[in-house]
Amino acid sequence: MEERLILISNDDGIASKGIDTLIRIAQPYGKLVVVAPVNAQSGKSHSVSLTTPIRYEIRHSSKNLEKYVLYGTPVDCVKGALTKILPRKPDLMLSGINHGANSAISVVYSGTMGAAIEASFYGIPSIGLSIITHDLDADFKTIEKTAPALIEKVLEHGLPNQVSLNVNYPVTTPDKFKGFKICTQTKSYWYEDFEETTDRFGNIAYYQRGHLVNMEPENPDCDENALAENYAAIVPVRADFTEYKMINELKNWNL
Amino acid sequence: MEERLILISNDDGIASKGIDTLIRIAQPYGKLVVVAPVNAQSGKSHSVSLTTPIRYEIRHSSKNLEKYVLYGTPVDCVKGALTKILPRKPDLMLSGINHGANSAISVVYSGTMGAAIEASFYGIPSIGLSIITHDLDADFKTIEKTAPALIEKVLEHGLPNQVSLNVNYPVTTPDKFKGFKICTQTKSYWYEDFEETTDRFGNIAYYQRGHLVNMEPENPDCDENALAENYAAIVPVRADFTEYKMINELKNWNL
Repeated sequence: MEERLILISNDDGIASKGIDTLIRIAQPYGKLVVVAPVNAQSGKSHSVSLTTPIRYEIRHSSKNLEKYVLYGTPVDCVKGALTKILPRKPDLMLSGINHGANSAISVVYSGTMGAAIEASFYGIPSIGLSIITHDLDADFKTIEKTAPALIEKVLEHGLPNQVSLNVNYPVTTPDKFKGFKICTQTKSYWYEDFEETTDRFGNIAYYQRGHLVNMEPENPDCDENALAENYAAIVPVRADFTEYKMINELKNWNL
Repeated sequence: MEERLILISNDDGIASKGIDTLIRIAQPYGKLVVVAPVNAQSGKSHSVSLTTPIRYEIRHSSKNLEKYVLYGTPVDCVKGALTKILPRKPDLMLSGINHGANSAISVVYSGTMGAAIEASFYGIPSIGLSIITHDLDADFKTIEKTAPALIEKVLEHGLPNQVSLNVNYPVTTPDKFKGFKICTQTKSYWYEDFEETTDRFGNIAYYQRGHLVNMEPENPDCDENALAENYAAIVPVRADFTEYKMINELKNWNL
């Protein structure tokens, strides 16, 4: 039987603790090919380099692990891997582990999920994994202990074509962790609060600060609230933006 | 009665023909505030500047039109407009007119729709407009003639909270144009075909080329096929990625 082939990427870049942890978690499951951005790509969403060429370099090659850095976005990494680097379509794609939450509406801004969603377009079962802290030295023990069960279930059942999983972990210890919960994406938006700064030329500029506004604080089944209860939230994701509920109303506008 | 306030942005940048056309179309409907990227931001999706500060400059101010350039992404433009530039929440947001299709799965990569979707998060009725050619000197006559009716309908009916419209126009003349059609987002993906080039340091790099693969060529109600029939396709859009159909199946995995 052919060896299982697993593609790994992220948006924090090749040097992050999160991707090292994910490589360690995935190692028992097959040959790993890591194609990750050379530098941090947080907030890059599903962006793709259209006007500049992308470039990649191999950085490590051993029997069961190859590592490439790519000068581009997380989605560029997936496109580069599938088009140029991998010998065939991989059996699984893992993205992360992201340092920072990609729950609720943050999924839209997420490069981690951009990469996972991109891989899902080609029928590859894909999982994006995040921990809800930006701590660069985050404690991934709970994830190391529990993510293998999730990976094994995905390998066993597969995922529907063009569907990926968005998995967010709380900051917790294995003894307090409540397990996985299947969730919906929390209705929400970011309240922005710009912080004024001055650039080196004396121009006023702004850092974007803000916080998530949870529009359904009473819903026990949405990801944000599951995380608050110390569950890891799993949302099945499909990038179909159609608001089907509004189709008939729009037809009645008689445009 | 307070004057209507309209926010305009795009992803091709302040200097594009598309945004000039949109300004001309929108002028009769209220006071316009344009906040657009200083340079082209195609393919920037919903990306947001998280680690670098954003800056903007006013470039034009008259009674019914203000223009700002912003050093950032289309979504940064909307966040900057709502947080710092506009005196109040606008009554309408228009994004475009994009030079290039944002139909089918291209909506995911689109900075034009990133901006419209971002505005919709705050309850602002938002429309993203695109023409399916990258011609920088595209002929916008059909759009100039027909978009006002659409804008008037949106002003009359409003849009549900967090819903925007993704409107793509065919390349056609007013006499051949079939009108608007309410559509779903075409199931599809991009087939990539990288073009090899060499950078100035002699390194091999790749331009991403490709074409859209339409996975439902027989569906008359999806946007890609409506465009092929010379309709302008309107898809109501909500950035809820949840694949609701898979929730119960995942629960049965007993994770």
